[in-house]
Amino acid sequence: MNALNIAEYMHTLGLQAKVASAQMARANAATKSKALLALARLLRESVEALQVDNAKDLERAVANGLAAPMVDRLRLTPKVLETCAQGCEQLAHMPDVIGEISGMKQQPSGIRVGQMRVPIGVFGMIFESRPNVTIEAASLSIKSGNACILRGGSEAIESNKALAQLVARAMQEAGLPAHGVQLVGTTDREAVGQLIAMPDYVDVIIPRGGKGLIERISREAKVPVIKHLDGNCHTYVDDPCDMAVAVKVTDNAKTNKYSPCNATESLLVARGVAQEFLPQIGAIFAAKGVEMRGCPESLAILQSVAGLQLAAATEADWSEEYLAPIISVKVVDGVDAAIAHINQYSSGHTEAILTRDHVHAQKFLREVDSSSVMVNASTRFADGFEYGLGAEIGISTDKFHARGPVGIEGLTSLKYVVLGEGDVRG
Amino acid sequence: MNALNIAEYMHTLGLQAKVASAQMARANAATKSKALLALARLLRESVEALQVDNAKDLERAVANGLAAPMVDRLRLTPKVLETCAQGCEQLAHMPDVIGEISGMKQQPSGIRVGQMRVPIGVFGMIFESRPNVTIEAASLSIKSGNACILRGGSEAIESNKALAQLVARAMQEAGLPAHGVQLVGTTDREAVGQLIAMPDYVDVIIPRGGKGLIERISREAKVPVIKHLDGNCHTYVDDPCDMAVAVKVTDNAKTNKYSPCNATESLLVARGVAQEFLPQIGAIFAAKGVEMRGCPESLAILQSVAGLQLAAATEADWSEEYLAPIISVKVVDGVDAAIAHINQYSSGHTEAILTRDHVHAQKFLREVDSSSVMVNASTRFADGFEYGLGAEIGISTDKFHARGPVGIEGLTSLKYVVLGEGDVRG
Repeated sequence: MNALNIAEYMHTLGLQAKVASAQMARANAATKSKALLALARLLRESVEALQVDNAKDLERAVANGLAAPMVDRLRLTPKVLETCAQGCEQLAHMPDVIGEISGMKQQPSGIRVGQMRVPIGVFGMIFESRPNVTIEAASLSIKSGNACILRGGSEAIESNKALAQLVARAMQEAGLPAHGVQLVGTTDREAVGQLIAMPDYVDVIIPRGGKGLIERISREAKVPVIKHLDGNCHTYVDDPCDMAVAVKVTDNAKTNKYSPCNATESLLVARGVAQEFLPQIGAIFAAKGVEMRGCPESLAILQSVAGLQLAAATEADWSEEYLAPIISVKVVDGVDAAIAHINQYSSGHTEAILTRDHVHAQKFLREVDSSSVMVNASTRFADGFEYGLGAEIGISTDKFHARGPVGIEGLTSLKYVVLGEGDVRG
Repeated sequence: MNALNIAEYMHTLGLQAKVASAQMARANAATKSKALLALARLLRESVEALQVDNAKDLERAVANGLAAPMVDRLRLTPKVLETCAQGCEQLAHMPDVIGEISGMKQQPSGIRVGQMRVPIGVFGMIFESRPNVTIEAASLSIKSGNACILRGGSEAIESNKALAQLVARAMQEAGLPAHGVQLVGTTDREAVGQLIAMPDYVDVIIPRGGKGLIERISREAKVPVIKHLDGNCHTYVDDPCDMAVAVKVTDNAKTNKYSPCNATESLLVARGVAQEFLPQIGAIFAAKGVEMRGCPESLAILQSVAGLQLAAATEADWSEEYLAPIISVKVVDGVDAAIAHINQYSSGHTEAILTRDHVHAQKFLREVDSSSVMVNASTRFADGFEYGLGAEIGISTDKFHARGPVGIEGLTSLKYVVLGEGDVRG
């Protein structure tokens, strides 16, 4: 397709989605559950067929010299498909929030005013590699009563098309509209440019992928974006703290997994506990091969730790999201200095204080300007499932609309409902 | 100032606002109330002094040949100032929502998770003519714990500067930061272009003014906009309905006031009640000088009404926001046709059904895709004060973040709060 054809094609998808969105919004809870359960069944029935389609993507990836971890991400193993099926079933059994009315109160005029939760309309999801995101997005779309347009990575196009066909069959079985979930059928990059610039058809864009993709989309989109940029998360060890808790939680926050966005990347330590705390955590990090990049004061304390990879922190380290066995370390005066440092350098994702002091805990919770603030818990808990949201659309580092882990409600809005008995305004 | 200087100046304001926003967010409820009460007192003490500054704007406006209604909008009469003072007092006495924690629940892992309401940070407000908006915006800023940058109309610059000085004095008395509320001191239009394109400093823009201003800002802004475009509101008279209620509420929805965005602009009537309803409402509109622009079927019924200004509706009429004594009229098959018409032509502001049928009422509430949906009430009720919000920032016709009348909560967001007891993730 040339640019003109792609524009026409995307506008057709947009218009179809807009029309379907009204039907999706009207669908009742039972219909949506039926579609989700049908999709789970079809996924299980199609494990072998899907692997035939998936193999085409895998062969092309290998032929194109894609690195082994990237090829792995493309793979629709029986286990990946079973996880997808279970996800659909979980969503099917979750309560339906659409149509829920809250806060209905009578006003002095006599009218009763409340708010009804309704779908946003149409969302566009743009993602890379992993084809299972097609199922995640489709199932979120069905459950939330939104229509969606999905744009997966070109390297997974055959797998995505096969999965989208299963989605279409499940929706048809339940009586949901054919255009409720649409996959962009072209791998041309121009299609992304169109998708993010159709405010008449698309209400919100959700990008999933590398920082480059997300920055480009945020910059160019003509509609709101639920975006997740980096996670430069901090753990602050306060004075006073339970030393055993501080060591255990800091260890978990850094070393439980290195790649997630909620792993701690920077450690702040109150001066009063630094002499006791740093050698203990240093010994653990030495054993696990975690490099520490410290301020001069922390380096002086840590240099006696045997086998620890130690370096002087540069200004750039305070802003770095390593996603690797590296952590920056700074000794600070106390809670105020920790809060100031965090609000200056953090990406606003997740920060934790490890403390016994009630006033410090309250101050930290209130004044740290991040999407999740924690007391005596590992930053690794910042996650939609751990927060009980049931499904996670993404983690928003913005303050507008949704902040932090975003569940189904992030794809909804509240409209006002007014009930009168022939009331007029004076 | 030249363009370069304006860019520098606006960046200075932005940086100052960002710094002040942390202090505004930390301010406790008593401090904010003290500032609001001080502002109310200063407004009352300064009635005469303000009129001297206001006179400069009025003289310039008259000299520039501004139309009389436009000059009136600029006028800071004692009554306008008293209303401002009372608004500040009302806000001072409203509950403070900042810091409120909701939904705290324990999760299977043991952590407790809730959400804390916090200020968004910095908002920019862009408005025209009426200088009292300076006080409204400043008081909302103080109450919500946000910093703000205000850009008023050039025709009110002297009045706005005088009011901003009172705001600064009130904030100083209470111990709030000097840069918590800043007025843009230049009338250069380039300053607006800068204000809406500083995502590092400004979190949201609220434009108040004509459709042209709002469209321009929405198009060019690099940050979210809480915007209100047009209000093409519908009243649908259903079959069955209480005829007396239908006539009374339709009359009020159209003729209570012609200029507000929540006045009804289009009337839909179920075929089954059209013969009885239309002549009654036609007689009232004839007496009040309201022109009716109808579909052929309604024209046939209405042509017998003595003294009624009647015209055939064109396709354009169905989308028109008249803000005048004109209403479009269409006879429809029933509730489904009414909903389809509304979802096609409405601007998504406010729509009402007048009915006795429970199923029709529920269907209308659920399926009409507008920010306010009403049963047996006048569309004129769509208003922050009538909804009990206490203060109104504006009415949003968007679905993202805030929808419909926006109160203080529209200037806040929710961050996650996690309380543990040394919990780590497995």
